[in-house]
Amino acid sequence: MPRNGAINRERILATAEHLVIEKGFAATALDEVIEGAGTSKGAFFHHFPTKLDLAKALVDRYVTADLGQLQNALSETAHLAADPRARLLAFLRIFEDGADELMSEQSSCLYVSTVVERDLLTAGTADRIVDAVVGWREPVAGLIRAAVEAHAGHERGDDETNDDGNADGVDADALADHLFVTFEGAFVLCRATGDAGHMRAQLRVLRQLVDHLVR
Amino acid sequence: MPRNGAINRERILATAEHLVIEKGFAATALDEVIEGAGTSKGAFFHHFPTKLDLAKALVDRYVTADLGQLQNALSETAHLAADPRARLLAFLRIFEDGADELMSEQSSCLYVSTVVERDLLTAGTADRIVDAVVGWREPVAGLIRAAVEAHAGHERGDDETNDDGNADGVDADALADHLFVTFEGAFVLCRATGDAGHMRAQLRVLRQLVDHLVR
Repeated sequence: MPRNGAINRERILATAEHLVIEKGFAATALDEVIEGAGTSKGAFFHHFPTKLDLAKALVDRYVTADLGQLQNALSETAHLAADPRARLLAFLRIFEDGADELMSEQSSCLYVSTVVERDLLTAGTADRIVDAVVGWREPVAGLIRAAVEAHAGHERGDDETNDDGNADGVDADALADHLFVTFEGAFVLCRATGDAGHMRAQLRVLRQLVDHLVR
Repeated sequence: MPRNGAINRERILATAEHLVIEKGFAATALDEVIEGAGTSKGAFFHHFPTKLDLAKALVDRYVTADLGQLQNALSETAHLAADPRARLLAFLRIFEDGADELMSEQSSCLYVSTVVERDLLTAGTADRIVDAVVGWREPVAGLIRAAVEAHAGHERGDDETNDDGNADGVDADALADHLFVTFEGAFVLCRATGDAGHMRAQLRVLRQLVDHLVR
């Protein structure tokens, strides 16, 4: 019986993702991916005619999983919608609490491995990473605006809301992007130091700073 | 007249740094560096017998420049030592105000290009990046502790200081590392989106969050 094509494709992608995150894209040889996935060259090139096709499929799969994590965290905190400050902090706490497990699964981030190579970015992978950035920015900025409005109303002792949804000039979109920035920067710090504990520590710092902002 | 060896070495390193930040280390061919630097193969291999020697020299030079920026910012704010909160915020403001110029000079960071390749890290470049991380952490954590102590004294309306120098559980070392994390994460964001303005926006968010912490 021939192997199921979809299963084979998924095995190739999982193997390639691990290698690319570990070694970088340019430094990963296709032969290593083929051998690691236990597939044939024929099957490999059937799914991915060029290395760039592999790169695009890797980023696409990673973005889908990334946005899935976001949706899970939004769902898990939906019951706190009536208390926007509690929801924002509980939302951030989910990533902090999941940091050690995340770092046990991967030593860095596919986005970091991708952005360092200009050839990959200009070939179309950048568009999908931007989908992820914007996919996080919009709902997270929504949580931030709601929390800031609740905070502003509380501080004035009335039900008025802050007109622009910003807290003392902190732009909600930029603060939402800061979650992406904290993840990516902490991946770099973890790799440089060999200490995976920095991911949790950095997500904790972010939660605590946001806590001060909306407390 | 033969060219001055030190000048030639510096020209090779400047050319290589630009290429490695733009394309990644593995994707940068030594022939491109040699051609870009306008040097001979003989001169190149005299200075850098292997590609790894080049990588080590690049990281070493980058770390020296990076810690030089830190020292400049510490010196520029030394006159504010009597007002630790003002000094910390002025210190952070220097990087925010310099962000656009930084991003006009480089599209990403050599640390990001280095950490993605495991072979480079295990060959000794990681040690020098850790020198940079620790080199930033210690003085920045010192500024943070001083600001938090001033804040705690102010909040209590007396001269007592916070015993551990932490603000409501925010670890000063982790918050100091968050400056490195913000730089690195923002480099990734700028590269992914093609929008260099994110560097300034992210450094601004960090300053504003710290401002809330010690206000």
